[in-house]
Amino acid sequence: MTRFGRREESLPDLMAEAARAALADADVERPDAIVVAAMNPEEFTGEGNYGSLINTHLGFSRVPALRVETATSSGLAAFYCGYLAIAAGFHRTVLVLGGEKMSHLPTPRVSEIIGRSIDPHERRYGTTMPALAGLITRAVMHRTGLTLREISQVAVKNHANATRNPYAHFQEAVTLEAVMDSRMVADPLRLYHCCPISDGAAAVVLHAEAGPVRVAGIGQGTEAIAVRYRSDLTSFRATQSAAQAAYRMAGFGPERVEVAEIHDAFSPFELISLEDTGLIPAGKAGRATLDGETALDGRLPVSPSGGLKARGHPLAATGIAQIVELTWQLSGRAEGRQVKARVGLAQSIGGIATNNWVALLEARP
Amino acid sequence: MTRFGRREESLPDLMAEAARAALADADVERPDAIVVAAMNPEEFTGEGNYGSLINTHLGFSRVPALRVETATSSGLAAFYCGYLAIAAGFHRTVLVLGGEKMSHLPTPRVSEIIGRSIDPHERRYGTTMPALAGLITRAVMHRTGLTLREISQVAVKNHANATRNPYAHFQEAVTLEAVMDSRMVADPLRLYHCCPISDGAAAVVLHAEAGPVRVAGIGQGTEAIAVRYRSDLTSFRATQSAAQAAYRMAGFGPERVEVAEIHDAFSPFELISLEDTGLIPAGKAGRATLDGETALDGRLPVSPSGGLKARGHPLAATGIAQIVELTWQLSGRAEGRQVKARVGLAQSIGGIATNNWVALLEARP
Repeated sequence: MTRFGRREESLPDLMAEAARAALADADVERPDAIVVAAMNPEEFTGEGNYGSLINTHLGFSRVPALRVETATSSGLAAFYCGYLAIAAGFHRTVLVLGGEKMSHLPTPRVSEIIGRSIDPHERRYGTTMPALAGLITRAVMHRTGLTLREISQVAVKNHANATRNPYAHFQEAVTLEAVMDSRMVADPLRLYHCCPISDGAAAVVLHAEAGPVRVAGIGQGTEAIAVRYRSDLTSFRATQSAAQAAYRMAGFGPERVEVAEIHDAFSPFELISLEDTGLIPAGKAGRATLDGETALDGRLPVSPSGGLKARGHPLAATGIAQIVELTWQLSGRAEGRQVKARVGLAQSIGGIATNNWVALLEARP
Repeated sequence: MTRFGRREESLPDLMAEAARAALADADVERPDAIVVAAMNPEEFTGEGNYGSLINTHLGFSRVPALRVETATSSGLAAFYCGYLAIAAGFHRTVLVLGGEKMSHLPTPRVSEIIGRSIDPHERRYGTTMPALAGLITRAVMHRTGLTLREISQVAVKNHANATRNPYAHFQEAVTLEAVMDSRMVADPLRLYHCCPISDGAAAVVLHAEAGPVRVAGIGQGTEAIAVRYRSDLTSFRATQSAAQAAYRMAGFGPERVEVAEIHDAFSPFELISLEDTGLIPAGKAGRATLDGETALDGRLPVSPSGGLKARGHPLAATGIAQIVELTWQLSGRAEGRQVKARVGLAQSIGGIATNNWVALLEARP
């Protein structure tokens, strides 16, 4: 993957940097196919036909390439399609590549473009992603007793992890006080509860043959795009369904997961997601986080990369960056932030939790 | 599929109309998964997160849905991903659904949005899709002796076919003189050599079990997005590669194909494509068309639906509409335009022939 953050390079250049690194690492000269994830390159960068743009830019214009999109979880959607192409016997080596470039645009324009993943009716009232996240956070705090201190500790932990990740957008630790005192974005969410606007790309090579890490399971879950149709705002059914599907495919449950990369676009989403994936019992994630259970040296390290909050969130790059981090962790290559784990879980949220993915990776014995 | 043309309905409504028809026809109440094709709904309609938008709109918010895009060939790309999901054993029944809505926008804006599939450098010179198609047409005429009369006959034939297709954008026949006298768009291409701006949607249901028609082969082919990188403008390598892959998978060649749906976004593309797929020997497609070989009652009926020229071309709907037409033809349900065929070929062009697909369908004995 590339370093995430404010990058001057074009999106095709960022994708090429990630692709070259992944191909070199996998010792693959030329993949059989390419799956590209990009949420909205047309509006962010003015360019479309991204499968063809990217395979040409990589010097692989004759390698079949297509684009896959499920809003902010597009990276894992592309990973799924690459997996399908191999599982169905169409290809033996697939390059899965995702990225986004948005820091060159004014924040309101970025917010408008990302906001297209919100239900049109709800968007008509001026709703933004942080606004909906604030609403959900209020509901969770009200109904489950989750505290702002617990929520804020997610950001503290993820910033601490990112100081050990040279690819992370932010490299500085933050204190609980700094998080809780940062400026208000969408009550009760403050600036340090929200992921930044990042540029970047990530890539992985999927092989038909055995490698150091295998895909044990992958599942997708969806939920009504309209938040008003949901009976419950304190958990994300789309994550629950995705996790169930992934565990079913893997033949094991959350008890075997020893490291996780979680979609903390907003800090409370990490806590909701830990419970939705069954990694922590319902109502316990806030306490567990405060107690350090999810820290790098805790019982279940969560987002050793720094997560969306601190590693950064270049939309379609994110799901693939989670796979990259887990691959490094499971193969003992996460220098400076290595955890002890044989099974890892990646969880990615599309839109306001309308189209979510869970993937399970396992180190080969 | 919906009727193609200028439609007042929203894209989600058009997609729902097509989806309902396909599900009813397949006698499926609820698919296991949905693959949505849309080239650029964000810019055409202002809405994104289309997998979630559409599954919610269909009343299937918990049915996993993702979006696939390869520019103007996105429909067949989605068909491929749906096929993969079944072939890999993930799902047994997949709804593949594509559509576009663009007639509400001014033509220059539509042209700008579609033009994002052109290489950025070439676009900087003001290049449009018709301009590049005109360039290619000039090259073909110069190098192979193809005549404007032969090219024009493609439009005459496809308009004639569309008069028998109630779903077609245009329902009127045109004469060779009318085509050749229509106003200039991009020399030598005139208005009646170019497909219209259409709205519409199309859907198919893919089953793991045997149905009346089976997918015998599907292949993708790509070529450098930059036209200036190509050594030859008289054929499309992306179609040739796609056809080779599809024939290889099917275990048979063009000799068994008895009906074809071809991507005539511009009339000469039908002739180029017939040769690229091996359906007609190189240099013979123009003459064969003038001789009526590709007419509804000819040796090899081509685009009985009316093709992109006359059935219309709502971008991501088109590849799926080709599958719909072939399915009707191969199962004896193409009332008023029925041909005699057991094997059909669909060919779809993405961008200026950068990302192409060929699918082979076969009637079950």
